[in-house]
Amino acid sequence: MNPAEHRRRLESAGRAVESSPFDAAVLGVGPDLEYLTGYSAHELERLNVLVLVAGQDPVMLMPRLEAPGFPLDGVRIDDWLDSEDALELLFALVGDAEKVAVSDTMRAHFVVPITRRRPELELGLASEVIGPLRMVKSASERKLLLASGQCADAVTTDLMEGRVPLVGRTEREVALDIRERLVDAGLDTAEFAIVGSGPNSASPHHAPGDRVIERGEVVLFDIGGRLGGYHSDTTRCVHTGPIPAEITEAWEVLAAAHQAAVDAAVPPNTCQDVDRAARRVITEAGYADRFIHRTGHGIGLQGHEDPYIVEGNDLLLEPGHAFSIEPGIYFEGRWGIRLEDIVVMGDDGLTRCNQAARTLNPI
Amino acid sequence: MNPAEHRRRLESAGRAVESSPFDAAVLGVGPDLEYLTGYSAHELERLNVLVLVAGQDPVMLMPRLEAPGFPLDGVRIDDWLDSEDALELLFALVGDAEKVAVSDTMRAHFVVPITRRRPELELGLASEVIGPLRMVKSASERKLLLASGQCADAVTTDLMEGRVPLVGRTEREVALDIRERLVDAGLDTAEFAIVGSGPNSASPHHAPGDRVIERGEVVLFDIGGRLGGYHSDTTRCVHTGPIPAEITEAWEVLAAAHQAAVDAAVPPNTCQDVDRAARRVITEAGYADRFIHRTGHGIGLQGHEDPYIVEGNDLLLEPGHAFSIEPGIYFEGRWGIRLEDIVVMGDDGLTRCNQAARTLNPI
Repeated sequence: MNPAEHRRRLESAGRAVESSPFDAAVLGVGPDLEYLTGYSAHELERLNVLVLVAGQDPVMLMPRLEAPGFPLDGVRIDDWLDSEDALELLFALVGDAEKVAVSDTMRAHFVVPITRRRPELELGLASEVIGPLRMVKSASERKLLLASGQCADAVTTDLMEGRVPLVGRTEREVALDIRERLVDAGLDTAEFAIVGSGPNSASPHHAPGDRVIERGEVVLFDIGGRLGGYHSDTTRCVHTGPIPAEITEAWEVLAAAHQAAVDAAVPPNTCQDVDRAARRVITEAGYADRFIHRTGHGIGLQGHEDPYIVEGNDLLLEPGHAFSIEPGIYFEGRWGIRLEDIVVMGDDGLTRCNQAARTLNPI
Repeated sequence: MNPAEHRRRLESAGRAVESSPFDAAVLGVGPDLEYLTGYSAHELERLNVLVLVAGQDPVMLMPRLEAPGFPLDGVRIDDWLDSEDALELLFALVGDAEKVAVSDTMRAHFVVPITRRRPELELGLASEVIGPLRMVKSASERKLLLASGQCADAVTTDLMEGRVPLVGRTEREVALDIRERLVDAGLDTAEFAIVGSGPNSASPHHAPGDRVIERGEVVLFDIGGRLGGYHSDTTRCVHTGPIPAEITEAWEVLAAAHQAAVDAAVPPNTCQDVDRAARRVITEAGYADRFIHRTGHGIGLQGHEDPYIVEGNDLLLEPGHAFSIEPGIYFEGRWGIRLEDIVVMGDDGLTRCNQAARTLNPI
């Protein structure tokens, strides 16, 4: 991102605060600050926030030792020392604001002292103010999501075509191998690599461990990283050896559910409609109780962000929305399968960020 | 850690809630849950908490898809589905509690909706309840901190003795090299590797970038990772080529300030006394305005945690406290130096987790 894009976003955010029910927004280290200013830093215990008060210029209130790392020229920086009371400086900046939105990622470490020391402040979430901006991806953001997905595809394709040894290795060894391959494929960082083998494939967020992968079982891979800040996140499965009929049948249902969700991802449908489309196929095939999570989540600077593809979310889909479609079928203690791609709503149809084959391969 | 230690901690935490002003504690994914149960997971947008209500058995309220990953037997698990309202389940569990402590690391994403939907609840921070338990490290925790420090020492020693090429490489290349060496030295993960060269050494939390390291400048390394969950965090500097007198003089002051803080880290001194001891040496040498941060931070399952070694913290030091001692002297835009070790208060004196030479080496 170039500084001009960050300045435009800052201006949009300022207007969003003005037209919102909030008098100010306090945006912490994490995706909000990264989106608006390009600033990223370790999230620590010192208050380090962008303060947007309606009708005023933005101010970065940051520890003096962090100030040299702020990248965007032209933003006023108020720095503070460890011997100072940063919250008092924040209260002075927001002045007589009555309603203040804080970043969804801000820690209780800050939020609770704010509620205690200024109980009259009505707090809300920044996602209610700048969420709508972040949710609609620009052309440059869409490019990064696509490129990030293509890097992950290179690795899933290697996995599905048997180019990564599996049988006889531990899940942890394979996960480390995948992480290296994600970076070799072009990602800036590998963020996660779930490797669930045999019964562990039925644990959707399994942490790869010491289990040795055997012949004749499902291995589920859910992998991704960041490129230019933007995440990839894709899931494929393989079977080490010939595939039993019950798993083949379930995979066919899963692939059909995935396609049904893709087909439903068109305006004027809602997020909930996409979830229902996948769930209907799985339910009609008799696996309703085996699909134990929502169909997807938004993606961008965060691995999970708005919009969530879940029952109850009646947000209308619109161009720029980016999210996962990832139905799953799990038999606890036995095996599980999931199929996940990232899609981006375009002005004339969906962009699929992942093109790796959507088959269950015996390898 | 073995499950028996986690069970003992859970019992201690239960007693701590009972004897606290709070009726319940809600502990989220992160260091609190890791400390009490050994459970670690990606911190996501689904509510995933341990609920400790005074006088009742603990309950894990967790998403069904995460439940297979919970490691500690004998804890009741209430799982929930994406189509359910997890906060309502939480409110039912805490019952008529009026004062509830939440993990310091819990996100506004959860805290703000709690305050909105149950404005009568008085929220506090879990650090007020189980902080005192976490702050006093057990024998097994002390061993891990020491071993983690020794791994980091192996890498700083390589850096200080010129075994890692610097001149002509970018900061980023050197940082990636350091991360690999930290894992090769035995750490489970490399968590950070600050490489600040030339003027960047004056930015205490500099993010390694594209600057190429030159001859005749300071290079500052602040590096660490985790071993069995426990962090290392150590800072050393080198000078590429002969050291100018002004930097040699400043280093002597810095080393004396560091030693003064170590000497002050004895009962019945307070955290603030340790900060003052380092600051006095630096101030008397005329560098007061150049020491722009506190002297240190606690360390354990988090890289930064209680107790903070800072003016205003009158907590009495006691055996089991683990923290950094890291004075620094910075000339913005020119050069900076810092010297950091982790120390653990013992029953009969201090354990230094870092033994690498505390010199500024020309290499």
